[in-house]
Formats: sequence, structure tokens, C-alpha cells
Amino acid sequence: MEEIVKRFKAQLAKLRVYQHAAGIMHYDMETVMPKGAGSMVGETLGALSEVSYRLQTDPGFLEDTAAILSNPDQVDAITLLEAKKISEGRERIACIPVEEFVECRIAETAASNAWHAAKISNDFASFLPHLEKLVGYTKRFALYYKPDQPVYDTLLDGYEKGLNTETLDRFFAEVRSKLVPVIETINANGYQPDTSFLNQFFPIEKQKELTAYLMQVMQMDPDHTVCGEVEHPFTTSFTKADVRITTHYHEDAVESSMFSVIHEAGHATYELNIADEIARSPLGRGVSMSVHESQSRFFENIIGRSEPFIELIFPKLVSLFPEQFKNVTAHDFYLAVNKAEPSLIRTQADELTYPLHIMIRYELEKQLIAGTLAVRDLPEAWNAMYKEYLGIDVPNDTKGVLQDSHWSNGSFGYFPSYALGSAYGAQLIKRMEQDIDVWSLVKNGDLKPVIAWLTEKIYRYGRRLDPKELIEQAMGAPFDPSYYTDYLTGKYSKLYHL
Amino acid sequence: MEEIVKRFKAQLAKLRVYQHAAGIMHYDMETVMPKGAGSMVGETLGALSEVSYRLQTDPGFLEDTAAILSNPDQVDAITLLEAKKISEGRERIACIPVEEFVECRIAETAASNAWHAAKISNDFASFLPHLEKLVGYTKRFALYYKPDQPVYDTLLDGYEKGLNTETLDRFFAEVRSKLVPVIETINANGYQPDTSFLNQFFPIEKQKELTAYLMQVMQMDPDHTVCGEVEHPFTTSFTKADVRITTHYHEDAVESSMFSVIHEAGHATYELNIADEIARSPLGRGVSMSVHESQSRFFENIIGRSEPFIELIFPKLVSLFPEQFKNVTAHDFYLAVNKAEPSLIRTQADELTYPLHIMIRYELEKQLIAGTLAVRDLPEAWNAMYKEYLGIDVPNDTKGVLQDSHWSNGSFGYFPSYALGSAYGAQLIKRMEQDIDVWSLVKNGDLKPVIAWLTEKIYRYGRRLDPKELIEQAMGAPFDPSYYTDYLTGKYSKLYHL
Repeated sequence: MEEIVKRFKAQLAKLRVYQHAAGIMHYDMETVMPKGAGSMVGETLGALSEVSYRLQTDPGFLEDTAAILSNPDQVDAITLLEAKKISEGRERIACIPVEEFVECRIAETAASNAWHAAKISNDFASFLPHLEKLVGYTKRFALYYKPDQPVYDTLLDGYEKGLNTETLDRFFAEVRSKLVPVIETINANGYQPDTSFLNQFFPIEKQKELTAYLMQVMQMDPDHTVCGEVEHPFTTSFTKADVRITTHYHEDAVESSMFSVIHEAGHATYELNIADEIARSPLGRGVSMSVHESQSRFFENIIGRSEPFIELIFPKLVSLFPEQFKNVTAHDFYLAVNKAEPSLIRTQADELTYPLHIMIRYELEKQLIAGTLAVRDLPEAWNAMYKEYLGIDVPNDTKGVLQDSHWSNGSFGYFPSYALGSAYGAQLIKRMEQDIDVWSLVKNGDLKPVIAWLTEKIYRYGRRLDPKELIEQAMGAPFDPSYYTDYLTGKYSKLYHL
Repeated sequence: MEEIVKRFKAQLAKLRVYQHAAGIMHYDMETVMPKGAGSMVGETLGALSEVSYRLQTDPGFLEDTAAILSNPDQVDAITLLEAKKISEGRERIACIPVEEFVECRIAETAASNAWHAAKISNDFASFLPHLEKLVGYTKRFALYYKPDQPVYDTLLDGYEKGLNTETLDRFFAEVRSKLVPVIETINANGYQPDTSFLNQFFPIEKQKELTAYLMQVMQMDPDHTVCGEVEHPFTTSFTKADVRITTHYHEDAVESSMFSVIHEAGHATYELNIADEIARSPLGRGVSMSVHESQSRFFENIIGRSEPFIELIFPKLVSLFPEQFKNVTAHDFYLAVNKAEPSLIRTQADELTYPLHIMIRYELEKQLIAGTLAVRDLPEAWNAMYKEYLGIDVPNDTKGVLQDSHWSNGSFGYFPSYALGSAYGAQLIKRMEQDIDVWSLVKNGDLKPVIAWLTEKIYRYGRRLDPKELIEQAMGAPFDPSYYTDYLTGKYSKLYHL
């Protein structure tokens, strides 16, 4: 068994190498690479993914994994869990013919490049054939894996073990029934805070200083973190030794990059605080997309858009932008960044209307995957739903169906994680408040105990626990979406004097 | 044979993948990676180099290469040359045991990271064990390859086929005998141009705009090029689709990054103009380090430090730095950036004293490799030579033996390329002047015909010709170092009214 475990660990180390190389190439492609080099990167990423596929499906590795799984008392707990995760991951891909697997990786890279270009030129038609391909691969692969299960449930389960449309249909129904009346009342009353001071010129160099400051507030170790610039911000982690966030700067909207940085820093904080003993193991990453989003949106909204946090950082904002914020108070800024109003762009949406953006994507994905909506009809369906649920007209695809990168990466079934993550966060803060004086700490700029609490309850485990088990243990109770709707209705009733 | 060629090309494509991935990781490590992630990168680069090694030494690939070489009339010229290059490259590494080969790659990455830290903290001692290791690997590997040849000749031949210490000893003796008297006369006369206006504050954001402008002057296609920031600037090419230069900005020295960018752009221009038909082949890169440096130093000095070029770009400098250059003329600037004075830093040295910096490194390398100088005694020997040849005291190792990255990458025998490349350039310009009106074109900012001339004579060939053959064909005559000494004595006699 010692020999087997040694071979198993050696194979894990090899896998790590290819994933590391492919990850760096992805990051490079998004942040640095000149745009004309796209096809060459696709070829290399395709080849790396082929090796990675072969390593994961190698018969010897399979045997070793099976031997470990069938002798649970002869190995340590970590090795046993690693074998379990590898076995689960393998099942998802071993059913895919290797040629198709590699073709799909190449198609994803091409789609990602096509999406970048299409978004800039508002040209959905040029992106359409790529998207059709990816929807095709996604459906085919899900059916290879679970021929008898609804495809969309298989996809959801891939991002959050055990999640299905039944749960989400119920979740969104509840969210809608509680939040839509609040939104309608706000619109009917007509009061809105002043946000005019946000529409000024904020030099990007100064915004970069703000990024550095926020990363410091978020306790991010500069020896292990860095922030790049991209079209659509994301976080990527190559073990806790190298966790990278990204942002996008708009000269006319300082709050855009500001909250983006806090959001991505939330993702990074999770990865940076995984226990050392599993840092280089397949167990050493965030457990699921929903739990990950619970952290990013926790810091972005529950902490980042709270009044104590705004009071903490406002002096820095004033020192960076003295002219722009000459006659503005921290409270004015707090009100402005919490303005609730139906809008076009998900990543810039306020907390209250945000879940509706997700609901629209969720409904569209369900239909795309079920085949009841053709890919070419997606822009029209998108625009219709924005009209129906948010009451707004979408002026072009750049600000509509092309706004998010997820589908161009083949990520279908990911979006619901955002709403679910937000809901987890609202329940988590209630539990955290029982243990530590969160808001005094935030106001004093001491986020260490907050991060320590989350590390103790969530981060350190990596993938050692299943997401449901992990999050319920952290929240101290089963998941209950009413914490989320209570939090939002409470916050916005106060903000809007309802 | 068709089958063989197909297999051969498939293996080349695989090699390209691993070299591409390793190259991106290197670039990322130098430009973006947080410093605390060093060890993980070493592991991954080591593993990729192992695969690359195995691909290159694969017995089937060997057989296919041999079959092509022994049937030259059954394959096209490009395939035959590819087989020849592969065979030559293979011979250099196949003699190295794979474990040692991989250990050395890992040691190089560790040394590179240690050098970065040591340079910042002026701590040669912390770099010493790394450097000792690399010297050891270098000597051992050279002896595996050519057990009966002096090691340093083997190293020189690796960067420039056919180059040896005999040639270089003669070259440096000639350079020294012609240039040292000029330097001494300048020092004795005591006249120096005013350079005080270079010692001002030049905001890095404005310097970045200058970089973009210079890349445009150099005709670099933004779809295929990008400029990163590093400690020690370099250029890297992943086929002509993706050629990246780097620079280092100093707030108190605008000319430092300016000439660095022009230098690296010279390297990039070479790679960007290789013929399409060999762009993705092992033939599709610059043929040798000397020829490469002949291009970078041609653009940096012969073009970049000429009066017509300074007249071209000076209006841009004034528009970016109006306060700093308020009372400065293009001619003042021209004189200042050509000031000849013994100095500490090679990359900032003037054209006239530059070859002495190289000569010192050449002499030290010869002794290190011969074992007549211990690695631990290197700082002392370095400082003594700077005193002897340049008459200056080295205040610390950061500005002395730790200034260059080359040794930390295991590049021993590379430095002479710089001097040789400069000499090639001086002979090339004389030949070019017979065909095109170089200086009118430069003054008008139209570098296209200059680059077209170089493309026709040099760039397009990639590695199809041997360096000696290629450069002599371009220069229209055998290499003659008196062009170089004539160029320098002529230029500096005029500048210093000798």
C-alpha cells in the first residue's frame, strides 16, 4: 500500500504541474498576451489538457485510486479523500472520448477570444457559432456522464454537489416574492440618493492606489498576491503561494473597480487561508462555486457596502480624490453605493436587484440546455426578460447578452452560485455576530478576526467537507433563505425609509 | 518517408507546446508572479523541461530524424534543415543524464529567484551557493558534450557556432588597442557635455507613453507585441505571433528605459520579421546571440543614438516632459545621451566604454570556467578589474557583480555576443548606406525601409543559414572589426572635438 500511495501522490504532483502551466497560460491570455496570439495559445492549451486528461484517466492511476478506496483503513484521511475526489472527477471526464475533450478545450479558447472581440464590437453573430459549439459540447458531455439525469441538474451538481433545479426554482420563487415588492415600492416612492459625485473623472493611476490600499485592508500578503487588469474580473489560485485577482478600471466610475477588487479579494482570501497540510493537494481549493461566491459577495456587499466599512475607507478615498469628493460625506457615499435601481449590468447591479439578474440567466440557461431556446434566439430572449423582470430596455448586446464571460468559457450552471452565495453570506453574518464584534472591527479596519473566524469555520477545510456540510456547520443551522430576504428587506427599508 | 516526416513534424509540434508553456511561465515569473510563489514555479518548470527533454531524446524521434538526414533528396529543404537542427540540439543534451538535466532547470529557477533577492539586498553571499551550483552544471554538461574541448569554447559555440577564445582574444585586443587611447584622451581633455537635465523627475506614466511611441516608431504591431516591466529587461518570442519586450522604469532617468525599449525592440523586430513559412518551425527564430545583439544594439546605438533619430523623437520628448526639457535642444539631448565616461552599470554604459564592460565579463567567465577563479572570489575579482580597466571603484555588489541576470540563468559565454553584435552592426550600416538613404529615412521617422532591408538580408532566414554565412552575406564581406573601431573613433572624435 505504501508503494501505491507513493505512485498515487506522484501522479497528483504531475497533474498539478499541467494544471499549473495551463492556469498560468490562461491568466497570461486574459491579462498580458497580445490579442493576435490567440490561436497559438489554443493549440498549447489543448495539448496540455490532453496530457492532463490522460493522466487523470491513466489505467495505472485508476487502479491505484481504486486500491486506496477499497482499503480505507490502511491510508491516512487526506489520502483517502484525495482518492475520492480524483475518482469523482475522473468519472465526469473518463466518459468523454479524448478527442472530443481536447476539441472542446480548443473550442473554449477560441470562444473566449471570439467573445472578447464580439463584446467590443457589439457583434453577437460572430460569437454565435462558438457559443453553439460550447452548448453542444456541454450537453453531450453531461449526457455521457449521466445519461438518465436532466442535463441542467448534472451541470448544477458540477458546481455545487447536490444542487438541482427543484431547489433553485423554490429559492428563486421565494426571493422573487419577498424582494419584488420592495423594489416596486422603492420605484413607486421615487426617492433616490444623490449619486452625481460618482460620475466624475477618476484617474486610473489613483484607482490603482486604491486597489493596493483595499488589498491591504483585506490582509492580502503582497508576497503571494497580485492584481491584473482584464475585461471581466476573476480570481485564480495556483495553491495559496500564488493567488491572483484582477479588476477593470473605468475612468468615470471609481466604485466599479473598488467593489470588484473587494469581491475578488474575497475569493482570494478563501484560497489564501486553506490549511497548509492540504495546500498542494486536490483538496486544497475552495469547495464549490456557491461557497466561493458566498465569500466574495460577503466581502463585497455585507462588509464592503456596510456603513462601518465605508466610514473606514472614506478618508482614503478623499485623500486620493480630494476634488471629486470635496462636498461629499461618508454617509453620502454609503447611500450612493447602495442605490437600488433596475439596471443593465449584473456586476454593477445593487444588492437588491442583483438576484433578478441571476434569475434571468438561470431561466435562459435552463431553456438553452433543454433545447427549448435556440442559441441564435438568445439575444431576443435576454432582452425580453430584462424588460419583463427589470422593466428596462437593453440597447445593445454588449450591454446585454454579451456582458458576461461565463458562457464563453463553457460555464453553464455557474450563475446560480452567485445568488446562492449571497444567501449563504446573509446567514453567516448572523452567526459570526454571536462570536465577534464584527462591526467595531470593520470600522477600525481590523479584518483579521473576521478572516480568522471564516478560516476556522470554512477556509481551512478546502474540499475536505462537502459544501452542504461545510456551510451548514459554519452557519450553525440548515440553510434558510429567509436570512437573505430579511437582510435585504431590512437594509433597503432603512436606506429608503420604507 | 511521408509517414516519417509526418511523425517528425508531429513531434516538433509537441516540443513547441512544452516550450511555449515553459516560456510563458518564465515571462510570467519575471513580470507578474508574486515573489513568494517561486518554489512552485521551479517544480513546474522542472517537470516541463523533463517532458521536453524526453521528447527531444525519444528513440523513435531519433530514428525519424536520422532517416530524414540520410535521405536528403526525399524531403524538402526546410524539413531537412529542421532535422539537422534537431540533431545538433539533441547531441548537446542527450549526453546529459535526465535527472541532472531536470535538477539543473530547477536550480536555474531557484538561482534566478535568489539573484533577484540578492541584488535588492546587496547580498552576494546568499546568491553564492546558487551560482556555484550553476557553474558546476555548466562545466559538467559541456564536458559530457565535448570531453576533449576547452569548456569555455564549447559554451561560446553554443551561442555562436564556431566562436572560440582565440577569435575573441584577438577581437578584444584590437578593440582595446584602438579604443582605450580615445577614452584616455577624452578623460585628459576634461570636456563633457551637460547632462544635468537628464537628472530630473520623469513620471513613470509619461515614460510608459514614451514606450508606446517608440514601439510605434519601431513599427511593432500591437496585435503581436507587448511591453512588460522587469528588473532586467529582455525579449521573448513565442513565434512571430507573440513577441514580448520588457523594460525597467527609473523615475530619475528617462533615457534608461528609452534606450532599453529601443534595444529590446531591435530584438523583437528580428523575431517579428521571420518568414511565415518557417515561423512555427525550429528554424523560425534568430540564428545566434551575436546576430540578435547586432540587431538590438544596431537600433539602440547606431540608429537610436544618432543625431537624426534624436531629432525625430525630441518633439515627442518635449511634449511628454515640457518642464524638464524647457531649455534643452535636440542637439543638447544628442550630446548628453552620447556622453562617454567610465561607469558602473553595463546596460547604462555609453557605446565607447561598453566593450570594456564586456571584456571584463569575458575574462572573468574564462577564469571561472577554467577554475582559476573561485566563485566566492568573484566580487573581489570583479571590483579589481573595474578598477584596472575602467578606473572606478565599485561601491557594492548590487552595482557590481550582481548587476546582470545572465549568470543567474546559467548563461555563461553569452556576454561576448554583445560586443561582437555591436561590431557586426557597424559593418552592416556601411553596407546598408549603399542601398538606401538611411539617415533621411530615420530623420523622417520612416523605419520601414530600414527594417525591410534587414528583413531581406537577415530576418527572414531565421536559422536557415549559419550565423557566419548569414552575417557575411548581409555585410557583403567577411567580418572586419575595424568597421567597429572606425565607427566609434569617428563618432567620438567628432562628439569630443578630438
